Amino acid sequence: MDSMIDLTGELLIGAGRQDGGAKSFQAINPATGQAIEPFFSGAGPAEIDQACALAAEAFGAYRATSRDMRANFLETIATKIEDIGDALIERAVEETGLPKARIEGERARTVGQLRLFAGVVREGSWMELRVDPALPDRKPLPRPDLRLRKIPLGPVAVFGASNFPLAFSVAGGDTASALAAGCPVVVKAHPAHPGTCELVGRAIAAAVAECGLPEGVFSLLSGVGNELGAALVSDARIKAVGFTGSRAGGLALAAQAAKRAEPIPVYAEMSSINPVLLMPAALAARGAEIGSAFVASLTLGAGQFCTNPGLVIAARGPGFDKFLHQATESLAAAPASTMLHPGIFKAYQAGVERLQAGHAKLLARGQEGTGPNQCQAALFVTDTESFIADKTLSEEVFGASGLVITCADQREMEAVIASLEGQLTITLQMDAADNAAAITLLPLLEEKAGRILVNGWPTGVEVSHAMVHGGPFPSTSDSRSTSVGTLAIERFLRPVCYQNFPDAVLPDELREGHLGQSWRRMDGRLLPPG
Amino acid sequence: MDSMIDLTGELLIGAGRQDGGAKSFQAINPATGQAIEPFFSGAGPAEIDQACALAAEAFGAYRATSRDMRANFLETIATKIEDIGDALIERAVEETGLPKARIEGERARTVGQLRLFAGVVREGSWMELRVDPALPDRKPLPRPDLRLRKIPLGPVAVFGASNFPLAFSVAGGDTASALAAGCPVVVKAHPAHPGTCELVGRAIAAAVAECGLPEGVFSLLSGVGNELGAALVSDARIKAVGFTGSRAGGLALAAQAAKRAEPIPVYAEMSSINPVLLMPAALAARGAEIGSAFVASLTLGAGQFCTNPGLVIAARGPGFDKFLHQATESLAAAPASTMLHPGIFKAYQAGVERLQAGHAKLLARGQEGTGPNQCQAALFVTDTESFIADKTLSEEVFGASGLVITCADQREMEAVIASLEGQLTITLQMDAADNAAAITLLPLLEEKAGRILVNGWPTGVEVSHAMVHGGPFPSTSDSRSTSVGTLAIERFLRPVCYQNFPDAVLPDELREGHLGQSWRRMDGRLLPPG
Repeated sequence: MDSMIDLTGELLIGAGRQDGGAKSFQAINPATGQAIEPFFSGAGPAEIDQACALAAEAFGAYRATSRDMRANFLETIATKIEDIGDALIERAVEETGLPKARIEGERARTVGQLRLFAGVVREGSWMELRVDPALPDRKPLPRPDLRLRKIPLGPVAVFGASNFPLAFSVAGGDTASALAAGCPVVVKAHPAHPGTCELVGRAIAAAVAECGLPEGVFSLLSGVGNELGAALVSDARIKAVGFTGSRAGGLALAAQAAKRAEPIPVYAEMSSINPVLLMPAALAARGAEIGSAFVASLTLGAGQFCTNPGLVIAARGPGFDKFLHQATESLAAAPASTMLHPGIFKAYQAGVERLQAGHAKLLARGQEGTGPNQCQAALFVTDTESFIADKTLSEEVFGASGLVITCADQREMEAVIASLEGQLTITLQMDAADNAAAITLLPLLEEKAGRILVNGWPTGVEVSHAMVHGGPFPSTSDSRSTSVGTLAIERFLRPVCYQNFPDAVLPDELREGHLGQSWRRMDGRLLPPG
Repeated sequence: MDSMIDLTGELLIGAGRQDGGAKSFQAINPATGQAIEPFFSGAGPAEIDQACALAAEAFGAYRATSRDMRANFLETIATKIEDIGDALIERAVEETGLPKARIEGERARTVGQLRLFAGVVREGSWMELRVDPALPDRKPLPRPDLRLRKIPLGPVAVFGASNFPLAFSVAGGDTASALAAGCPVVVKAHPAHPGTCELVGRAIAAAVAECGLPEGVFSLLSGVGNELGAALVSDARIKAVGFTGSRAGGLALAAQAAKRAEPIPVYAEMSSINPVLLMPAALAARGAEIGSAFVASLTLGAGQFCTNPGLVIAARGPGFDKFLHQATESLAAAPASTMLHPGIFKAYQAGVERLQAGHAKLLARGQEGTGPNQCQAALFVTDTESFIADKTLSEEVFGASGLVITCADQREMEAVIASLEGQLTITLQMDAADNAAAITLLPLLEEKAGRILVNGWPTGVEVSHAMVHGGPFPSTSDSRSTSVGTLAIERFLRPVCYQNFPDAVLPDELREGHLGQSWRRMDGRLLPPG
């Protein structure tokens, strides 16, 4: 299959394929700086209205589908994505500059994620079934029969990220969890990889048709500029928003949602510098090793991860010089690599220049680029006082730029952590002799981050049940949830209580004959199916 | 115990008792219109700062307490409230005009609620423990050990409601659920019942001391005007807000919270007119009976419930005239009763006048009052077209004012429901012959309300596991939760993931030796303790 021939650049509105009323645009191959065929249509107000109308229309029928139907739908999407074959890989590589192996891995992650959510839908404990049986003889007042389940919020707008063209994009975690919850999805394609978006979008639309679902369960809108996103979030039929991207973008959408006549939840995963703490015993035992591992994680994928370790916090002590020396050496040797698109490259350059102009001292730059849009890694160092005084030093520089803070002692390390904003992750490099110090630090780390790692690196976010990819503001707009892992389904649900219902009128899963098939809480006691 | 002697009117800031820098005020006995001794101190910026500082300071130690200690603390609060004895009942009656039996019932509800949450804390499934064990041999990449638990958000500001001086006030559902989650609480006392607040506040402070908890776990601030609430919600150390009150008040606090450098969740339970649908068979079988039961619920406690049934939606048909006739008769006979305070009484009068001036026709007024601040019930009727055209008809009139909408048929009933904003409750009066119609309506009702009742009345909110006292905007600011019932604990928690932790550094409940003692999800499978 040749993706060049196959792509039409049309909007996917329900089952329809059409051009939009807004400006069309092309993707750019960041490795060459050249525009890629074809042109992609921009969605205007009429197309946004149409997609939202179809989503609202589809909501009732979609949320009424059986859990098994919804699980099959998610699995069908996964298969359809695999069926695109190499055309998807090729197009994604061309649009993002990411290596083929990385995109192949990301495809596996994306279809695995859809299948994981299929399992979650079938398992059903997310419905949170609860029954408090009637107590007709209770004094002074009888208790009525009360039953609770969670239902989906309604149509969800999903904003794909640029840095994971599959796993955080059209069929990424936000889409998978919203569809799993029973919410139709309107995706705003990321304009940096519109062809990849179209291919995946068509796979989802094909799955909608094959599963006999109402067409409005999924639409894909493309466009450049901020109008499309703002209009989508403002649409009264949209009931929640999933977003992964910049802090400015996430805050703008959250502000837009708060201004609505009916405010809605916005799950924006925004910015994080993912501090790494080098604990004394680990540093003494393996300073140089940590230095090279740190640079490997920092420069992986040109540093284009939400969880890129942009900050190292270490006390001067045995091993510190070895760490710094090795990190500097490794970074100086790090080859340049192509960034996702010219905009990200420019922002990276500006971020590094800002650091150079400020209170941080440049330790090393990586290898210079040999083509357009190549990220030249950078490593800076500063002290505690300068870091705490200069808030710009703690702003995310998206890309392979790292900052080491040298602290006099653990108390200074704590002061640095306390000065930080909310983070997606904090990592401890530690040995057994650091246990006591780590235990002391843990409460502070928990208040600052959604995930805490020991002796790993934060890049690499497992898609599983116990993952949290979220954290205190401004790493996300809502710390009560995660955008990766199965707990993400909770974001799109709300509880409803049914009081004194005749059995025949109850939703299926709450009826006497069916209750035993699911996890449920009877009078407060959790009971397994069967 | 004589509450008159005992009350000091001081602020309760941690373990301290002090006067505040803002204007002092008195409660008013609504039954007489007279001010009641003593004067209560108003909290100014210094006192707010102090309470928040103590709460922030207490957070670490409080959240580290064992579940059993926290449960004991909640139970101790319950006992201390009971120990106040009749002084509490007398003061609450004097400050609110509510009957003694009602206040006694509310006390039982309040202490029952605290004890229910003690059980929830001990049961522990709210911690949402999850473990995805390491898969060191997985290809292409090994999986690290991942463990998840939920931790409390931080200090919570609670705004007591006027209409439940015990159950939704200082030691009410918001406070109980926040303390259960591990969050210190700063309560803003409702200025309509400051003496009741002081008595309960002192009971909580005594429990804090008796349980050996840090004093900042609880503070009680009083004051009139909006400055205190705004300052509290704006304080950077406050991490969530619980509020029950007016729409204007809730929206103002939500706007304040959204403006913060770090926005925080606001759980505001605001306004609802709690529609009651009269289905044809029920109406035909027992129109008159429904008419008198409706008025009994409408006028209960002068209609001062969030769940007061302010709207009846019925199709003209057999039984309708009987319903309307009986409702009119019953309402005309309904005695006036004292409202909670002069402000609520004035707002009620204005609301009834607004209805009289609009598109609704007055059917009856209840008995005239014989003293100050007495609610004279009111019943109006209008048609579908007028109701949908005039948005003011669907605004809450807090008090015993009801509006009947006469529809031509079920389609018109649906149109009326579709035109409504989000509600706390919707009630169906129905018989078996209405089942099919109810099943058809149910999806729409679920989208509009947090609780749906059959053949009951929405007043009377059970405190249990399956209750939802919440609903789509603007009945609450956040439909994803409830402010009554045990699910309320979820509002004050966020997940944290621990990756590749040595067992010794893990939080207790996630350690290998302890995991088996709790509900946990292993590789996605829910497992019971033991």
